[in-house]
Parts: sequence; C-alpha cells; structure tokens
Amino acid sequence: MPATRSLPRPVAIVAAGISKFGAFPGKSSRDLFVEAFLDMESSASKGMDARAIEALYLGNFSSELFEHQGHTAPLIAEAVGLTPIPAVRVEDACASGGVALRQGVMAVASGMYDVVLVGGAEKMTSLPTAEVTDALATAADTQYEIPAGFTFPGFYAAIATAYMHRYGMRPEHLMNVAIKNHENGALNPNAQFGVSISDWMQSRIAAAIKKGKPAPTWQNVWDFLHDDSANPMIAWPLRLFDCSPITDGAAALLLVSAERAADYTDHPIYIIGSGQASDVPLHGRSDLTTLSAARNAAQQAYQMAGVTPADIRFAEVHDCFTIAEIVATEDLGFFPPGDGYKMAEDGVTARNGAKPINVSGGLKSKGHPVGASGIAQAVEVFKQMHGLAGERQLKGDVSLALTHNVGATGSTCVVHIYERKN
Amino acid sequence: MPATRSLPRPVAIVAAGISKFGAFPGKSSRDLFVEAFLDMESSASKGMDARAIEALYLGNFSSELFEHQGHTAPLIAEAVGLTPIPAVRVEDACASGGVALRQGVMAVASGMYDVVLVGGAEKMTSLPTAEVTDALATAADTQYEIPAGFTFPGFYAAIATAYMHRYGMRPEHLMNVAIKNHENGALNPNAQFGVSISDWMQSRIAAAIKKGKPAPTWQNVWDFLHDDSANPMIAWPLRLFDCSPITDGAAALLLVSAERAADYTDHPIYIIGSGQASDVPLHGRSDLTTLSAARNAAQQAYQMAGVTPADIRFAEVHDCFTIAEIVATEDLGFFPPGDGYKMAEDGVTARNGAKPINVSGGLKSKGHPVGASGIAQAVEVFKQMHGLAGERQLKGDVSLALTHNVGATGSTCVVHIYERKN
Repeated sequence: MPATRSLPRPVAIVAAGISKFGAFPGKSSRDLFVEAFLDMESSASKGMDARAIEALYLGNFSSELFEHQGHTAPLIAEAVGLTPIPAVRVEDACASGGVALRQGVMAVASGMYDVVLVGGAEKMTSLPTAEVTDALATAADTQYEIPAGFTFPGFYAAIATAYMHRYGMRPEHLMNVAIKNHENGALNPNAQFGVSISDWMQSRIAAAIKKGKPAPTWQNVWDFLHDDSANPMIAWPLRLFDCSPITDGAAALLLVSAERAADYTDHPIYIIGSGQASDVPLHGRSDLTTLSAARNAAQQAYQMAGVTPADIRFAEVHDCFTIAEIVATEDLGFFPPGDGYKMAEDGVTARNGAKPINVSGGLKSKGHPVGASGIAQAVEVFKQMHGLAGERQLKGDVSLALTHNVGATGSTCVVHIYERKN
Repeated sequence: MPATRSLPRPVAIVAAGISKFGAFPGKSSRDLFVEAFLDMESSASKGMDARAIEALYLGNFSSELFEHQGHTAPLIAEAVGLTPIPAVRVEDACASGGVALRQGVMAVASGMYDVVLVGGAEKMTSLPTAEVTDALATAADTQYEIPAGFTFPGFYAAIATAYMHRYGMRPEHLMNVAIKNHENGALNPNAQFGVSISDWMQSRIAAAIKKGKPAPTWQNVWDFLHDDSANPMIAWPLRLFDCSPITDGAAALLLVSAERAADYTDHPIYIIGSGQASDVPLHGRSDLTTLSAARNAAQQAYQMAGVTPADIRFAEVHDCFTIAEIVATEDLGFFPPGDGYKMAEDGVTARNGAKPINVSGGLKSKGHPVGASGIAQAVEVFKQMHGLAGERQLKGDVSLALTHNVGATGSTCVVHIYERKN
C-alpha cells in the first residue's frame, strides 16, 4: 500500500441531513432520499441553492435486489431536481456510503467540481426477512462462502468466537455495546429503535400485563438479554440484540471546496483524512479478531490528517453486530487488541466516557440502511459539531471526529476524519 | 450545468486489455477480468509491475442479478492479486464502464493516486434470456416505465419511430449500421459475433444444404435482413440484427499520471476530455430523437479538450441498438440532426470513411457485456492508437478519438476524448 498523499485542496461539509430510519412500506429509496435532502437543505445555516450542485455520488448497496431497480443515481438526482448533473452510484456493500463520500471528496479535491452532493439510500424492508438475509449475503463471496452455509450473523459469530478464544471475552460483554447504543439511540429522533433496552423491557412487561398474561420476571436488562424468548440466539454467541436491524433510510451531505464554504456556513467541517482498503473475504484470512482493511484505512486517514487515535474526540463506527464495534475500537487504535470489550464494559465508550462511540445509536439502534449508513455516520459528526444533536449532544470540545464504515466482513473499509476549525 | 473545468494534472492510459467477448458457461466475471488484466499487462510496451497499482475502479451493472454477487470490486481486486488496494464498484447501468473510467481519471487528476486500474466486467449469460431482459430493464425506471410494459428493445424502438417520423428514415436504413459493424467486428478476434452478415448468411445457406433442406433463396444481405425467419422482428422497426447481444466479457485500462507514463510506454494516450450528464427517464422527455445527456456530456468533453467534433478522427459509440449509433453520431456533433442515417448509408462512418464509427465492431458485433462496454471502447482507442488493431487497423492519423457510453436510454451518458501526442 503506497503512502497516502494529501488532498490537493481542502474539502468541507457544509450541510448534512438524514431521513427517519425504520420500516416504511409506502416509501421508495427515492422518497427517503428526498427526505434526507430536505433535512440537509435546512441544515445549511446560510441557506443553499440546489442549482449550485454539480454532481451526485450515491452510496447504494443493492437497489437491484431490494427494489428491482438499478441505475439509481440519475433517478435519485431527478427526484431532488438535479437533472442533468452527473450522477454516479458507488457500491462497496455496507461501505457504499463511506466510499461514495470518499469519491465526492476526491471529486472536489481534484478541482473538477466545487459543490458535490453525496448521499446514501437503501430500501430494505420491501422483501421478506429471509430474502433480505440472502441479498445481504451477496456482499460476501458467493462462490466460496455462501455455499458453505454462511450468512452475516454467522460470519460475525465466527469473528466473535475467535475473539473470545483469544482474549477471554464472554458473550455478556457484547451486551454492553447493545445497551450503550440503545441508550444513545433513545435520544435520536431519527433512530429506528430509538429506545433503551431497559425501556424496551418495561414495555414488554406492561404489554403482558395489559393482555392479562403472566408478567415476565426480568429483574433488569441482564435478565432480559439472557432470556431466549426476549433475546433469542441468532448465531452463537450473537443474540438478536447483538444484531443491527433491517432498515429503510437515506442520508445526504453537501461537500464544497474551501473557497465556497463561507457561502453556506461560518462553520465548515473539513474532511482532513480519508483512507480506504480492501481485503480478501473472511475465508481467506489468517486472523479473525481484527479487520486488516480497517487498520489499513485508518492508518491512511490518520497519516493524511496528521492526527493520532488519541486526538479523536468521538467516533461513529460500523457496529453491524456488537462484536464489530469492539473490534473496530481496536482496529482504529483507540484501545490495544483485546481491550475493546473491557472499555465498553467500563463505560469508556459511553456518551459521557473518554471516547464516545456511536453517540447516534450506531447501526445497532439508529438502524442500518446499508448503503446510507456510511453517510449517516458523517451526518452525526456534522450534527454534533454544529450543536444540532439535541439530547445526545456531546459536551465540551467536539472538534475532531472519525467515521469507520465496513463492507461485508471487512473486504472493504473506509475511514474519514473530520475537523471543525472555528 | 456549470462550465467544465480542466483537469488539475494530465492523466494517461499506458496499457489496455480485453477478454474474449461471448458466452462462456464456465467463466465468472472474475475469470473474465483476469483474462482482460493479463491482456492489459502484455500491452504495456515497457512492462508493468502490478504492485504499483494503487486503486481499482470497476464498472459493473448488475452482478447482483446476473451472478447473485454484490461487492464485486474487492473480489475482482483479489482475483488479480491487488488486495489491499481500495476497490470501488461504479454503477450507472450500461454506462458503468465509462463512468468508472471517469472516476479513475479524477482519482489520478486529484493527485491522490499515480497509478489506477479501471476495468469493467459483466457475466450475463448465466441467466435465461427472459431473465436477462428483466435484469436489464432495471436500468430504466421500474416505478413508471417497466410496469407499462417497456423493455429495452421497446424503448429504442420508440426512439427509432420518433426519429423516422421526424426525419423520414426508413427501417432499412438501420441495417446499414448492422452491416457495417459486423464487417468491422469480423476483423476483431475478441468479438462475440465476429462475422460479417454476408458470411453469416452464407453459413446459414451452407448449413441448410448440408442438412438436405431447401437452400434459402436470399440473393444478398438485404434479402436476408428482411426475412422474418432469418432476422425476426423484435420491436418494430427493430429486428434481431438491430440489437446488440447478451455477452460475458471484461476489459481493463491502466491510468497513470503524466510523470509516471514513461515507465510504461513511450506513447501514452492522454485523456484530454471527459464529460458526464444525467437525464430524466425516457417517459419524461419532450424529444425522443436525441439524448440530451449525450449532447451535454459531449459539450463538456469538447470544451475540456479544446477540440471540435470535426477534429475527432474516429469514435466508439454506444450502439446497443442500430438507431442508438445513428442518434449518437448526431448528438456528438459529427453530423446535423437527421443526417446520421444518411452518413451510415453513404459509408461516411465505415472503416475507410471520413468518420469511422465503431471500428471494433461496436456493441452490436463485438458484444455488450454491459458494465465492461465503456472500458472496451477505450481499449479499442488504445489499440488503434498503438497500431495493435490488426486487420481492422485504421490507416493514417489516429491521434484523436472519442468514446460515447450510454446508460439505459440516456439517463446517463459519459464521453471521453483521447489524444496520442507523440
């Protein structure tokens, strides 16, 4: 991997928006993107004229399988009135959004464009769950892995068991991640499951009583999370609450050159680091406890930004499964290998901890519309840095942040670093 | 559409390769890409070290539907030994290849990379023809167009009838394009249907005689092309020989910065113009006889390159149907509106004409593995400019060429202009 070079000119995010995440039977990915686009427009503190937008990069994993619609980018451009701008769909499985962001960054940095819209959209709930699982499996290697019986919960269960074996983590450690991310997501009005696990449990108890059924005897969330009826095993050691949901959603960012930033906001968020790497599929790796593409992408991004993991104030990482967040916090250099699960247990990654992770609720609670997730991470960074994060707003300095977006089991990883300079 | 800016630094093609195009039951898109990559390696006149490659942009329309495989880019990168480089799939329907090329150009121009592989791959013959037609239809608007009964032959038939109505073209004029492109493809060893229509007819006659059946009474290719049994109607006025085939294939290009070009070749091919535009789907347009995205993209490319249509020595255009080539030659400014079909009739677009179009055989005869077609066009430019085009080599000056790659009915169009400077 050659040394990462710096961007030829700075690129800033000046507006960011997100749709409600959830299951919306009446909405297509176009509808969802319009929602995100309108939210983005309202975030530009000095307003914005959509006619200035010169290109669209759209992250989308599989509109072909989910909506039987390819060639999504020009249709989405049309939906927000941007025809005839160049509209490009970028696909790298669940990293499609982050990779689209990276293409947008390069497009502005290259000088070809000054104002670029990057977005992500995915409409997933149109299919039955088994077909969604099958569609998601196409992100893995369908020649060598899927015929062996793997689907994504199984892949990440393999990562979890390897990690447990090496570092002594127990399945209940994973639950700390789920509890934390649902507590964060409970403060995010756009989240699909914006409710703490504690409140979730209470609502289950209340519902049982209302129906005249015997009230469950859960004393606390730990009881709840260990109950096979409340939190069934999906792929040992991963239970239902270790898995991110199937989600419809969209997100959008406006990228501009530094010279143009002041037209939109007095507080542009600069993208000071960007890294991306690929890896062989999981079946070909010698170590399942780390994603080499994540380490590689992070190293590129840190090098470009000239910062260290310790400098990062908060991060949105790809918690498609709880184990993925633990591994991510190590791959990003926040914690030494084998310490990630302890940091989750000790509250270091909590909203009020030293290194807040997934303040948005993460994929786990906010939802995971796969092609949009990488963009939604950057939207959270923008909102936090602009003080727009409502009840989940981080206190104190939030001027340096990172996003980590993974495709499949890390065959793709893309990392960005953001700075608010004034 | 804002004015096109120039590239911040020059980008050159220094190697180009292509797989055999056709129907290959035993080969996946990975296998096909390896074939194209090896052909590309052998074209670098000073040799090449694959370890210098810093990123991959892969054009692919729908590996999800054709091979039930998403996240194709890192798998293709692995297949040619390029892990862990960033690997990005780009999708804009049948323009995926050309758009991937444009992303590669921007990536090098931005200074982020010096050596970038761009490629395209599509494996289409794995599905029954009806399912391929259905998969291709996802490139159109599946909310508004496909439920009305349209598939792609119908779309282009609508374009053809509108054109006939306005300009007085007759269906037999379309056949001139098919005859020409098959004559060109007959000289291309990589072509799927590398045979002239005349020879095709003769082989049909010989086969009938061999089987003891009455020999067909075709006196010439015109008889043959008007015979419903030999050349059945697909969607009036388009017959079988007006349609490009369903194809498996791949193509690859090596892009480098100007400073690095001399490491690979003494004759780099510079990409001096690049343009891309989107359009609303066909159902929303006021004029079916021209693709506004093509005019738009061409204008951008000409402006960047500082050349005019008259300067272009030869072009590879997107002849998914014969009518598409005729419209393309007008949209690109080679001929006035309504003259394209006359120029095909008069031999102006023939290999020895004043403006050779689709010397490779085009999509029509060479084949149309959709995500690879845009890259394959650039491969033909490289081969012509390096004198590697064998029997179909153009005579005289071939130093300025253009490629025109269309997604769907022109919801996307991307145009590139190439120059060999020494």
